[in-house]
Amino acid sequence: MSDPTPTDPTPTDPTWTVRADGFEEAVVARDASNFLAGNGYLGVRGTLEPWRAERFPAITLSDSYDLADGRWRELVTVPNGLYADLRDDDGRAYLAEVAPDRLSRTLDLRTGTVRHAWAPSGPAGVSVVAERFASYDDLHLVAARLVVAAERATTLTLDVGIDGDVWSLHGDHFAAVHDVRTDAPDGEVGHERLGVDLRTVERGVPIAVREGVALAPSPGARVAEEAAPATGDGRRLRRLRLTLPAGGSVEVLRAFAVASGNDVDPATDVGGDPAGAAEASVERALAAGWAALHAANAASWAAYWAVADVEVDGDVEAQRALRFGIYHNRIATPAHSDRLPVGARGLSCQAYQGAAFWDQETYNLVPWLHADPAVARALLTYRWRTLDGARAKAKRLGYAGAFYAWISGDDGAELCPDWFFREVVTGRDIRNHFNDQQIHVAPDVVVAVDRYVTATGDEAFLRDYGAEIAFEVARFLASRVVWVPHRARWEIHTVLGPDEYHEFVDDDAFTNHQARRALAFAADVHERLAREAPEALARVAEAIALQADEPATWRSVADALFVPEPDPATGVIEQFRGYFAHEDVTPDVLRERLIDPGEYWGWPIGVAVHTQVLKQADVLQRLVQEGDTPREVLEANYAYYEPRTQHGSSLSPSVHAVAAARLGRTGDALRYFRKSALTDLAGDFKAVSGGTFIGGVHTAACAGTWQAAVEGFGGLWVDGDGLHVAPLLPDGWTRLRFTATFRGRRAVVEADRDGVTVTGAADNDGPVPVTAYGAFRALAPGAQLVASSA
Amino acid sequence: MSDPTPTDPTPTDPTWTVRADGFEEAVVARDASNFLAGNGYLGVRGTLEPWRAERFPAITLSDSYDLADGRWRELVTVPNGLYADLRDDDGRAYLAEVAPDRLSRTLDLRTGTVRHAWAPSGPAGVSVVAERFASYDDLHLVAARLVVAAERATTLTLDVGIDGDVWSLHGDHFAAVHDVRTDAPDGEVGHERLGVDLRTVERGVPIAVREGVALAPSPGARVAEEAAPATGDGRRLRRLRLTLPAGGSVEVLRAFAVASGNDVDPATDVGGDPAGAAEASVERALAAGWAALHAANAASWAAYWAVADVEVDGDVEAQRALRFGIYHNRIATPAHSDRLPVGARGLSCQAYQGAAFWDQETYNLVPWLHADPAVARALLTYRWRTLDGARAKAKRLGYAGAFYAWISGDDGAELCPDWFFREVVTGRDIRNHFNDQQIHVAPDVVVAVDRYVTATGDEAFLRDYGAEIAFEVARFLASRVVWVPHRARWEIHTVLGPDEYHEFVDDDAFTNHQARRALAFAADVHERLAREAPEALARVAEAIALQADEPATWRSVADALFVPEPDPATGVIEQFRGYFAHEDVTPDVLRERLIDPGEYWGWPIGVAVHTQVLKQADVLQRLVQEGDTPREVLEANYAYYEPRTQHGSSLSPSVHAVAAARLGRTGDALRYFRKSALTDLAGDFKAVSGGTFIGGVHTAACAGTWQAAVEGFGGLWVDGDGLHVAPLLPDGWTRLRFTATFRGRRAVVEADRDGVTVTGAADNDGPVPVTAYGAFRALAPGAQLVASSA
Repeated sequence: MSDPTPTDPTPTDPTWTVRADGFEEAVVARDASNFLAGNGYLGVRGTLEPWRAERFPAITLSDSYDLADGRWRELVTVPNGLYADLRDDDGRAYLAEVAPDRLSRTLDLRTGTVRHAWAPSGPAGVSVVAERFASYDDLHLVAARLVVAAERATTLTLDVGIDGDVWSLHGDHFAAVHDVRTDAPDGEVGHERLGVDLRTVERGVPIAVREGVALAPSPGARVAEEAAPATGDGRRLRRLRLTLPAGGSVEVLRAFAVASGNDVDPATDVGGDPAGAAEASVERALAAGWAALHAANAASWAAYWAVADVEVDGDVEAQRALRFGIYHNRIATPAHSDRLPVGARGLSCQAYQGAAFWDQETYNLVPWLHADPAVARALLTYRWRTLDGARAKAKRLGYAGAFYAWISGDDGAELCPDWFFREVVTGRDIRNHFNDQQIHVAPDVVVAVDRYVTATGDEAFLRDYGAEIAFEVARFLASRVVWVPHRARWEIHTVLGPDEYHEFVDDDAFTNHQARRALAFAADVHERLAREAPEALARVAEAIALQADEPATWRSVADALFVPEPDPATGVIEQFRGYFAHEDVTPDVLRERLIDPGEYWGWPIGVAVHTQVLKQADVLQRLVQEGDTPREVLEANYAYYEPRTQHGSSLSPSVHAVAAARLGRTGDALRYFRKSALTDLAGDFKAVSGGTFIGGVHTAACAGTWQAAVEGFGGLWVDGDGLHVAPLLPDGWTRLRFTATFRGRRAVVEADRDGVTVTGAADNDGPVPVTAYGAFRALAPGAQLVASSA
Repeated sequence: MSDPTPTDPTPTDPTWTVRADGFEEAVVARDASNFLAGNGYLGVRGTLEPWRAERFPAITLSDSYDLADGRWRELVTVPNGLYADLRDDDGRAYLAEVAPDRLSRTLDLRTGTVRHAWAPSGPAGVSVVAERFASYDDLHLVAARLVVAAERATTLTLDVGIDGDVWSLHGDHFAAVHDVRTDAPDGEVGHERLGVDLRTVERGVPIAVREGVALAPSPGARVAEEAAPATGDGRRLRRLRLTLPAGGSVEVLRAFAVASGNDVDPATDVGGDPAGAAEASVERALAAGWAALHAANAASWAAYWAVADVEVDGDVEAQRALRFGIYHNRIATPAHSDRLPVGARGLSCQAYQGAAFWDQETYNLVPWLHADPAVARALLTYRWRTLDGARAKAKRLGYAGAFYAWISGDDGAELCPDWFFREVVTGRDIRNHFNDQQIHVAPDVVVAVDRYVTATGDEAFLRDYGAEIAFEVARFLASRVVWVPHRARWEIHTVLGPDEYHEFVDDDAFTNHQARRALAFAADVHERLAREAPEALARVAEAIALQADEPATWRSVADALFVPEPDPATGVIEQFRGYFAHEDVTPDVLRERLIDPGEYWGWPIGVAVHTQVLKQADVLQRLVQEGDTPREVLEANYAYYEPRTQHGSSLSPSVHAVAAARLGRTGDALRYFRKSALTDLAGDFKAVSGGTFIGGVHTAACAGTWQAAVEGFGGLWVDGDGLHVAPLLPDGWTRLRFTATFRGRRAVVEADRDGVTVTGAADNDGPVPVTAYGAFRALAPGAQLVASSA
């Protein structure tokens, strides 16, 4: 503790570094989400250390769903244990008052370390470096340090502690707040521990926040403690007086830990001991010191990057943005649990309630199939654990089986309120039907189960979890379809497809396709288990009271369900019945019709409702999802829908990138790759729609960017025959390298402009089947397949 | 011609007279619809003689559907042959410039004569009386006369002629306009004939307008003719110089005739000779003179009133308003044809396109079942003749059979545009679904066929027309229902019930009930015809290619169709699935939420959409329609829905009046009777909704007022057993008398506060079955049944 260590150097590799220099308050407030530290347990927005609620600091805690305002159940934001304020005796605030160009912010993607550096300022030339990371070595821990240095001798006052005044979107989530202050165990200066014990409003979950520091002055520097100011405004502080000689510095190691009653399995030990857990984390961290803490965390990241990284040569911006997405897709994922969802904005803020949408299976999960299939399994297990919520939703709406929540938190109950958007011109609330009409979320989960089992061969998952998911969703679908005697077929009416601008539509091309696939999959699984695992099947059947005739019903509904197919003449699939009869305009024309730029474009009276303009990929979403889409069908539908798509969802560009890449339209593909990759980095995505805050990190776009690179330019596809690749690089890209996984065996795919080399990982336990540009090889460990794109 | 006759005296019996004294231009312009002269062939708004287009004169011609603006196919308004302008040599305009309190307007309901009387004015004390009626003796003819008198000697200039500058809602309907001016056949002053030949824009239908005058100066008075002014503004005039001695006068008889190429059966003589027909009408009228013309027309009215009148003692206002309704229901009805509809605004203006809605069968037709069943037959025959339009609509929307147009003109094609209301706050057009979701219009026609055949025993109609209507509608319904496997029943989704504020609803209580009844009726008719008239059935079956299994399908759909039924606990029927979950407020609360008083309350963002407030009777419409509704069910639903009903439709109050009367709530019943009866007379019904003009005479309310009196207070009901009556008079009413008809035999029902006397008409050809307060008698001609309400 007594040896001051120099701060880590500012990271310099641009392909691994997100950096922003300068200071404009609104910009820092907004892109604090990009500079997010996180570990899937909590997320720490990259706001400046002294910033308080009005400037959007947030430490968002997973598994802390709470309802405070009667409408929005969301994750809580806990008191901020990174609060710091540094002043000299003239009152200069070195952290809070930032001259333009004095501040530099970086995120080291390689280690997940966020760094704020303030250049020397004031008569004494005081500079500060603040670093932080959310530890993968101890999920409760946020490790941070401040290094304060002065060019000339000076005396400074540093307040450090916990600030309870943090940003919360929908109300105050804490019914009880109890301050905890512990004297320094060793009696040393600054060694007391600060803490807050909280209890959530709705469910009374105990949450403990603890903070402690360790001080390391440079030779000649001194630290004394003064009585902490009684602020009465939510800050719990310790006040340190720093006396620095010329060239002197003080390093303040900060250990900030959060634990909650939910961390302990409620089945075995309701409540647990969050205070004890948080205190232990703090003590362990202070004992270990920055270097050890940082190294342990970096090791976890290194293991991740070894399999998750996608390398691009020739395009630094693309490389960085791609890694930015891969980084955020990791820290958004509660990989430590099989009970928690990936939030649409991860843990970057409370928007979208820290809850799963169809994004989870369709986007976030996909990279995990290759980087760590166990995480994909955990996410799907979460869907199994939340079946009761989905069953309750189906029942409430008058259906059978399981209808997954459009917005799914910890228990699968529908978190999407009936009302939230506002029609900004009239000021009237909008009743959107995301929650009851966007039924594709249910079959989407089943399709993900199918993909997972195909990619991993994890039959145990299918038996223990996947079958029940598939059966319950098939039940739902079989109760949701209607038989139309006049056309002698099953149809699905009154839905909302991925294109959310068109509600109340019949026979949505994507939805019906997903439904048919899910129904057929459920029937297939039932047949297979009956043959191969009758006992497991009997267990599932008993658990859900499956009737003998149900699987045959699923099959017959799948067989006679209408699914819009390509027009024989044009190849175009009509998005839903009647779509082609709508006004045929482009998004640019509609933009001119807006009365207010903040208007919602969709239901009930937005500019897109009665036009062919779609919010996001819908037919293309379906075509891209299937590996066997004929090229001419993909081409026809890309040509038709691409100009009519507004990309009002961050999910949309990556689908277009994959489609364009498959079609050899590499220029389009690169444009859409960039649009996806820069969703957050460009900082221009709207943060408010129809009056609702929807900012934060777009985690699905992060995963979508991976898909654009790997499934688009890499041409990766997985089916029962193994891995398929067919790389085709866009202009400027000279190399693309990624790792793909099939049934526990990895292959490293390395493409250049001429072709591809696929290498079976040396530690594979057998051959990995790979098809490159149509050429198949069962690649033994270490073996290579070289194929040319020509 | 040479003897001046005094004008008819101003009618004075307040129970037969609608009168308005005074002058306020906006009031006259609006209630010119109330002072409508008409005969089912044409309607003449009661605007003042010199008024031109900007003040809404209109002579609306039946069977003249034309599309001029690309959206609204509507009846044309022909040039105004009643134009007149009277001035003295100082330029005083005696007809156009009206001092307050100088004008008196009356409508003599007994003879259909409209009278404008201007009190003496100017230095010479010039007074004018103008009278007009649309003749039932010659449907082409509008007979009018002007009597100009002066207290002191004076010289006046009278311009009379045809003004082409009339009000047209949606464009100029005439592609060709050709003036016709014929010299006086006898060379006398003013005896030339004026005329205009027109041709409609869309279909090129020729229309001829002719006008002639006959002059009758009092002794000492002289009329000379001057050259007619060349106005160049659409007026075709003759200019008369009147030289009046003190106390002198001139009577100007005016014959104004209209004929069209559609008057001749297009099957036999396309085009016909409208000019010849109009000219002949003018010559016949001028030869006959006012007294004979008036007498012939009055005789037609007398015959009507003899059977159609409903007498009320003790409530002059009610008596007048009731007769006002009975009057307008006659002149709105094209009784001369079985090819034409009753317009929702009759021939009072072009609003609602002179076309039939469900109003026709549910309201307008019902009084005709008693006054003249042949007219009811003609209206239903119109529905048979327009089956092709209904079949085309069904096919276009993807269904089988016949789906009647929501707005049905001469050929049954759907006249209701997809777009017409405007959301007034945003200025955005509204896509309402009246045309494709309000499917109940189809079974409503079948229910009317059922009622007609029950009341008349007209099996020939059933064989020749009714069966085909029923079969085609049943086909439609059987293709429109969906089978919901989860609930093992047929349902009807995505409809709009009578309550037009709630679109996209499932299982509307009224709609599903009507559908079940129509399906069962079709199956019944098929069985009956198979038994009793196999050849007629074979003819129908061949005409529509009926398949052998279809009737059984109708039966099975009827049997397993879900129809919302009374809640066992409360007796209340849920209007549609999910209705009870809507916000439970009253119309008054919603009124407070209006941003603009002109807002449409319904779809998509109006104040009522997400509430339980209904536009008009929906569940009650169903319960009132059925004679066997249990009292407690009617009571429960009246109590529930009545406070939540906004009565945004003029169809609504009469339903409530009937329901309340049946429940013995005579105070409520009288209130709603008045609301219905005064719909037009009170003059406060909104004329514009969501930017669309919807003014004019509410013909359904006119018939509804009859229903309120006869079916409500009279308790009249008709079923296969005959007539049922159970009068219960409201406070103030001492006597109620009306004529009811069952299978060609009439009964006069005369009720007082204690009971009822029913008399079989002396000229009946046999007994008429009557049940009064539950007591049955087959009443021989002239026989009486006296029953007490106690």
